Amino acid sequence: KVMVSNEVKPHGAGDSKATHLWELLHSLILSFHEVSPAAERLRYILSEEDDMPTPTLFTEMDTLQREGDELEWKESARWVKFEEKVEEGGERWSKPHVSTLSLHSLFELRTCLQTGTVLLDLEGYSLPQIVDDIIERQIEEGMISPDLREKISFVLLRKHRHQTKKPIHRSLADIGKSSSSTSECHAQSRSMNDIADTPSTDQLKNKFMKKIPRDAEASNVLVGEVDFLNKPFVAFVRLAQATTLGGLTEVPVPTRFLFILLGPQGKAKSYNEIGRAIATLMVDDLFSDVAYKARDREDLIAGIDEFLDEVIVLPPGEWDPKIRIEPPKKVPSADKRKSVFSLNELGQMNGTAGGGGGLAEDEEIFCGGLYLDIKRKLPWLPSDFYEGFHIQSISAVLFIYLGCITNAITFGGLLGDATDNYQGVMESFLGTALAGSVFCLFSGQPLIILSSTGPILIFEKLLFEFSKNNAIDYMELRLWIGIHSCLQCFVLVATDASYIIKYMTRFTEEGFSSLISFIFISDAIKKMVGAFKYYPINTDFKPDYVTTYKCECLAPDPNSAVFLPSLDWSQLSKKECLKYGGSLVGKSCKYVPDLALMSFILFFGTYSMTVSLKKFKFSRYFPTKLRKLISDFSIFMSIMTFVGLDMLMGLKTPKLIVPTEFKPTRPDRGWLVMPFGKNPWWMYLASFVPALLVTILIFMDQQISAVIVNRKENKLKKGCGYHLDLFWVGVLMATCSFMGLPWYVAATVISIAHIDSLKMESESSAPGEQPQFLGVREQRVTGILVFVLTGVSIFLAPVLKFIPMPVLYGVFLYMGVASLSGIQFWDRIKLYMMPSKHQPDFSYLRHVPLRRVHLFTLIQITCLAVLWILKSTFLAIIFPVMILGLMVVRKMLDMVFSQHDLAWLDDLLPEKEKKKKDDAKKKGKEKEKKKAKPDDSEEEVRNSGFCCPL
Amino acid sequence: KVMVSNEVKPHGAGDSKATHLWELLHSLILSFHEVSPAAERLRYILSEEDDMPTPTLFTEMDTLQREGDELEWKESARWVKFEEKVEEGGERWSKPHVSTLSLHSLFELRTCLQTGTVLLDLEGYSLPQIVDDIIERQIEEGMISPDLREKISFVLLRKHRHQTKKPIHRSLADIGKSSSSTSECHAQSRSMNDIADTPSTDQLKNKFMKKIPRDAEASNVLVGEVDFLNKPFVAFVRLAQATTLGGLTEVPVPTRFLFILLGPQGKAKSYNEIGRAIATLMVDDLFSDVAYKARDREDLIAGIDEFLDEVIVLPPGEWDPKIRIEPPKKVPSADKRKSVFSLNELGQMNGTAGGGGGLAEDEEIFCGGLYLDIKRKLPWLPSDFYEGFHIQSISAVLFIYLGCITNAITFGGLLGDATDNYQGVMESFLGTALAGSVFCLFSGQPLIILSSTGPILIFEKLLFEFSKNNAIDYMELRLWIGIHSCLQCFVLVATDASYIIKYMTRFTEEGFSSLISFIFISDAIKKMVGAFKYYPINTDFKPDYVTTYKCECLAPDPNSAVFLPSLDWSQLSKKECLKYGGSLVGKSCKYVPDLALMSFILFFGTYSMTVSLKKFKFSRYFPTKLRKLISDFSIFMSIMTFVGLDMLMGLKTPKLIVPTEFKPTRPDRGWLVMPFGKNPWWMYLASFVPALLVTILIFMDQQISAVIVNRKENKLKKGCGYHLDLFWVGVLMATCSFMGLPWYVAATVISIAHIDSLKMESESSAPGEQPQFLGVREQRVTGILVFVLTGVSIFLAPVLKFIPMPVLYGVFLYMGVASLSGIQFWDRIKLYMMPSKHQPDFSYLRHVPLRRVHLFTLIQITCLAVLWILKSTFLAIIFPVMILGLMVVRKMLDMVFSQHDLAWLDDLLPEKEKKKKDDAKKKGKEKEKKKAKPDDSEEEVRNSGFCCPL
Repeated sequence: KVMVSNEVKPHGAGDSKATHLWELLHSLILSFHEVSPAAERLRYILSEEDDMPTPTLFTEMDTLQREGDELEWKESARWVKFEEKVEEGGERWSKPHVSTLSLHSLFELRTCLQTGTVLLDLEGYSLPQIVDDIIERQIEEGMISPDLREKISFVLLRKHRHQTKKPIHRSLADIGKSSSSTSECHAQSRSMNDIADTPSTDQLKNKFMKKIPRDAEASNVLVGEVDFLNKPFVAFVRLAQATTLGGLTEVPVPTRFLFILLGPQGKAKSYNEIGRAIATLMVDDLFSDVAYKARDREDLIAGIDEFLDEVIVLPPGEWDPKIRIEPPKKVPSADKRKSVFSLNELGQMNGTAGGGGGLAEDEEIFCGGLYLDIKRKLPWLPSDFYEGFHIQSISAVLFIYLGCITNAITFGGLLGDATDNYQGVMESFLGTALAGSVFCLFSGQPLIILSSTGPILIFEKLLFEFSKNNAIDYMELRLWIGIHSCLQCFVLVATDASYIIKYMTRFTEEGFSSLISFIFISDAIKKMVGAFKYYPINTDFKPDYVTTYKCECLAPDPNSAVFLPSLDWSQLSKKECLKYGGSLVGKSCKYVPDLALMSFILFFGTYSMTVSLKKFKFSRYFPTKLRKLISDFSIFMSIMTFVGLDMLMGLKTPKLIVPTEFKPTRPDRGWLVMPFGKNPWWMYLASFVPALLVTILIFMDQQISAVIVNRKENKLKKGCGYHLDLFWVGVLMATCSFMGLPWYVAATVISIAHIDSLKMESESSAPGEQPQFLGVREQRVTGILVFVLTGVSIFLAPVLKFIPMPVLYGVFLYMGVASLSGIQFWDRIKLYMMPSKHQPDFSYLRHVPLRRVHLFTLIQITCLAVLWILKSTFLAIIFPVMILGLMVVRKMLDMVFSQHDLAWLDDLLPEKEKKKKDDAKKKGKEKEKKKAKPDDSEEEVRNSGFCCPL
Repeated sequence: KVMVSNEVKPHGAGDSKATHLWELLHSLILSFHEVSPAAERLRYILSEEDDMPTPTLFTEMDTLQREGDELEWKESARWVKFEEKVEEGGERWSKPHVSTLSLHSLFELRTCLQTGTVLLDLEGYSLPQIVDDIIERQIEEGMISPDLREKISFVLLRKHRHQTKKPIHRSLADIGKSSSSTSECHAQSRSMNDIADTPSTDQLKNKFMKKIPRDAEASNVLVGEVDFLNKPFVAFVRLAQATTLGGLTEVPVPTRFLFILLGPQGKAKSYNEIGRAIATLMVDDLFSDVAYKARDREDLIAGIDEFLDEVIVLPPGEWDPKIRIEPPKKVPSADKRKSVFSLNELGQMNGTAGGGGGLAEDEEIFCGGLYLDIKRKLPWLPSDFYEGFHIQSISAVLFIYLGCITNAITFGGLLGDATDNYQGVMESFLGTALAGSVFCLFSGQPLIILSSTGPILIFEKLLFEFSKNNAIDYMELRLWIGIHSCLQCFVLVATDASYIIKYMTRFTEEGFSSLISFIFISDAIKKMVGAFKYYPINTDFKPDYVTTYKCECLAPDPNSAVFLPSLDWSQLSKKECLKYGGSLVGKSCKYVPDLALMSFILFFGTYSMTVSLKKFKFSRYFPTKLRKLISDFSIFMSIMTFVGLDMLMGLKTPKLIVPTEFKPTRPDRGWLVMPFGKNPWWMYLASFVPALLVTILIFMDQQISAVIVNRKENKLKKGCGYHLDLFWVGVLMATCSFMGLPWYVAATVISIAHIDSLKMESESSAPGEQPQFLGVREQRVTGILVFVLTGVSIFLAPVLKFIPMPVLYGVFLYMGVASLSGIQFWDRIKLYMMPSKHQPDFSYLRHVPLRRVHLFTLIQITCLAVLWILKSTFLAIIFPVMILGLMVVRKMLDMVFSQHDLAWLDDLLPEKEKKKKDDAKKKGKEKEKKKAKPDDSEEEVRNSGFCCPL
């Protein structure tokens, strides 16, 4: 059963004092004469139809050390994927790093494997037996004399000390007696086996276990120098079954491989390097496969040769070998490397992944889109709920809830002003809660947060003025517009009009979202500046002349007044004074001290603290989990801090006041609007026309926000639901109209904030592996909770009234700034200010000349500037429609930029994309396609996400 | 004259489709049979007694490309030290990065050199002639057929296009015509040589020239595939004289080496990699030496083998070869690598460097220290002035000036209170100016800034109270204390007492400076908090009830008053009202609006803006020089910004008010204090006792600050002058006492700030090389200017009065925080909060167990806590003496920690150090010493600085 290659070369690894490469090459080359090329061998063994993947290997390297009188094996390094070394003096694990090897040690290892004993599929059940077998084999082959049997066995069975977290306490006595010779040991009998058969409690308790994959097996590397050998003793063993060999490994993982190198004294450093080399090889995906499947010694050597052929070499003058290289963000996939050797092509790997249904995109049936949406989303429904239960959801709910109610109050106030309180703060709260929770419960994309938006506000304002001037009943007219708009939405759903979003490329999408973010930021700042107007500061105040500042309420001229209540005028408040016709006289009347500056401190403090805490995730302090928690709850913590500061100061800063009673803002309206009776009949039909505008507004606003949410960068897995979303927006339009509540549509910035607060990262598995962005917690729980909370805000009023508005404006500022980060447009704007040598290594900069990049950015900036100006005029109402303008500009860019450049800077438009694909198909050249479109390895973010199959 | 190795192997580089390593190894090994080991050869050629260092090599790689109809050589990469690649699509230079090579390409290159033509010391004056010579040689040796002569020559003489900054404009016509075959070219005659003899204007104008060392020579690598060859055409040429070969190189640098690789079509990528390999080798310090000195082909190959032996190998599974590795902060020194081959040992390299005089440290003569100080400093005197003329000095002067006058005003005010205005703000200004400028002009360490300090203030306070209570003349007593103290200082100078500083290790020094920094920070914050007490905020203010807030001045009860001026009481200011006995009544009397919050905004804003701007140096925006300027002037810019903001707001924040008239603060004292007449005669002698305390205070404070300034990390080059400094401090003590001015001593934090603002970095030379910290602009100009400005501040009052005090407190906060950064103690405190896996790779962490590090830090923290508490009691006066306490604690640490640990965490005490050295000498073991003390490569900061030879 034991397969052994029987060509044993007489050249030993370390017996000659080979210090230079040429000697190694010299001995190494001798074997080349008789073997077939390495690749040929590997192709043979790796292509075997063997579907079972090989287990992950955990490698531990132990070196032989003298501890007082005794010899023992001390753990000196370990590998899960990257190397962790035991810092000798520091008695600690180093950071995981890339194993930098010397070419020398690899060649020496190669010689070792050529000349040493290779035992493949050895039946091993305990270390003494395995050691026996190895020694037996060496004696048989005449490589060692039989009288060394005892000594070698003794050394190999010494106990293993692992670097666990606990410091190693040495008794003082131990330190005293140091240098007694090894010779004593020889006398001791063979039975002195220090290694237990079962794993110790230390091993079982080792927390490092959780960093090792469950199916892992161990490979143990033992290297050391002894004084009784005059040439190296080398063995490479693969066990037939992975077996737990007592205290050999620091964790209770069964051992599969064993590499032993004992050599004469004086070359410990060299042995160490050889040990590191084999350990690094064992954790290499390709070589470990080879090790598992090798038939003989030559297969292993072929594995080394293949490894050597792929290694990356750093010139000695440009890199200091002492620098430990941090693990890279991404390592080349092992599958790709292996694919060279497997027979079946891996062509299918680039196909679409994800659960995106199987229907062809062009299949046109009535309501086909809606049907597909439902079919796509239905299977995810249970997970939409249970995936919501996570601590991160709490922070997301708090964050978005505060955003939503601030928005509800702001828009409620504005709507109240615009419609003479027909729709006020109360309606705004109720509508937000109703529309939001229904949408989150049933929509296709529950990550979208509905909210009032600017264009709708302007529309309501115009509509109310029109009604008032023409003596039309506003609420009834509005109801009919809502009904029409709802029906129009249904028509758009039925005709699959949402497919238009295919033409929204990165150019359009990022342009729009930037603009919305700018509006958000500018609104937040405007509100802050407003505080300085609302609470004017008396800049001429001279502390010494405090005696001259007062504000007195003077009674109006008794002659002119018809009726003068008998009042103590000096005791009246400002409001009362004005109410009763008094006049305010004095230097301090116009001014309010402290509030403006305090508001500024709260506003800016909340913003900057949030930003700092968000960044805290990347600091070195505290354990990763705590840092992540702090980062997740950064907004909550900032709000709490500044609410606390505000309470501490006790100043009368403006607070968040929510309605406390459940009744319409305007006492003369109810909760239901009757459709008939107040306006002439033709009005019911004529309202079709304004409804058309509303529909277009809502459609564009909703779909572009959905496109932004479904960005590839977000790696959403559950697919989208443009048609289903629109359907529900339509339904909610009608419902809200009937109840006299505002209309709601997807809010870009808050939706982005929602997604940002739900992002998941992989828990890093192997030490040193970078956490990867996995995607977003796609579920309905957070959204529903946010809106349920909004609904019950009436009862939360006693708590909410402690929150100063400037703090919330700070949160808004943060939302706006955060939604700008990570979009390519913004990155490209920053490039303007960077000298080219300092620019980050964006992949598009490697492929598109900088001046073209700048031109592209400039066009985008110009578009946004034009939109910004238009927004400031009466055209603001058709703002969402302007997206169409952006799409037209994008279409024209096809004439200015080559498709190659656009593929890097933007996405290709559907017809071009198709044409490219067809071209590629015709020519049958994979290469051509790759040239025209960025390939996935370089631009992994863009293409690795789930692409919604529209 | 032309030396050529004549062993030409029949194996070509690329003619067989060698894609796997084993084949390469196979062909490679054949040569090993007859040659001596590589190292042997190198030792022979590199150890030649040839003192002239070889020039730096600039390497350019051009690849053959078809541009429309024409063939041309297009620059594809260049190397000064690191590789810069031309981004094909981006038409730009990549960032400089470490050249990552494949082992494969290195082996192929080796084969190329073995089989190709090697022409060493060829007499070349023009490219056509050189090309002719190469081809001739190849024909002679039968490697190519003579009919290829024309074709090869034609290809090699095509014009070279370099990647200059300007984008390459291609006409649209060019893009149209693309694929015409090479065959046309053949017909064209030989005379069509595209390469000019003289460098073009493009070359001469190339700004890249300044990145290349002046003595540099070029090596040109030309690789390309052609259709007329069926095996590679390889040539390596070294010219006898470096010659400018027309437009061959992008910069007008003469060419010394030429590597040509032309091969059959289809392997362009492989040729490219070989080209990169030789280019990387050419810029390698060791190989370029070999290339210059090689006698034959075998020497070159030995160079490659040596290079291979030193390369660092990255495993393919742990590193993605596509990642460009950023140049490391430090690369291994070439000298170290070369030293292996040179005959003379480089043992002297570790000796002390710098201009520290030659006298042995134990030589004891009267005033020996002072003599040595003067002897050491005198030669630097001229440079102390001309080195001050630099833009950085302006920012340093402004920064330190503002610090000094703020300090002068603060201490002046406090002294005025403490001494009943015998010493006030005016004396403080005059004294600062006088003492500071004299010290900066004549002292041993002009980077030290003198200032009043806390202990002296307390001493003055006690002295004044004592004089007042005992009816002694304060000024006369103070004069005599000053005289005695001055004489005592002279005694300390004469007896070389300053040698005590040898016992101030890092433990003491960092402990003290941290404590002073904490005091600075806490003072700045206390002053800020003071603003809230000085300008109380009315937190109960209700904007609506503004009518109820007033503050009226009520006339005193007319019955009780003796005399009542007839006044309009309501028009009086607060001060006047109180002055005339009125009482203030009203809710707003106690409060001052806005000023406290505004002060906070100014304070915090100045601090955070300074911090942000300082960090701006490390951002990617703007060219390096501009960034450095912004960083240098960060404090000035922050002050200006917030002074501007303050002016804009117009609030009456407290401003910096300096005296405007030159006269003593107290009208009854003059500018000179008479020594006799007012106090009894025994007082003149008795004042010896208090003088002793003052002397100790001054001595400790002065010397510890000097130790901190002379820290090794600061890399000062001009040596120190502890004795000379003390001498001048003594002289100034007496002078100030005679003039009735405060006493001055080195101020730790401001001195550190002075040094920080004068730090120099190397301008990075080769692209990618990191700028190195070079040291500090050691000169007397900035100090003198600061104090001259302080002296004329009287005239600057109209400008200074715009600066709000909170802004200056912000600057103080910054100074305190900045002086904490970069000290190891502070780094170690941070370690408490970091999980060990996130801790930075400090070298002491590799060698000392974490728990010992933590224990050491804990002891240090405890010491500081004790000192902090003592400082808050009456013991504050002997605060500087407490340093002695720290030194005692340090001494006791020898019992707790091993010398090994202390060597890493601290410095060794002199006797231990000596013992260690002796031990090492006795045992003759270099190894032993290295174990006990950190070796310089790992802990370069600590040991590379100039160690003052005390």
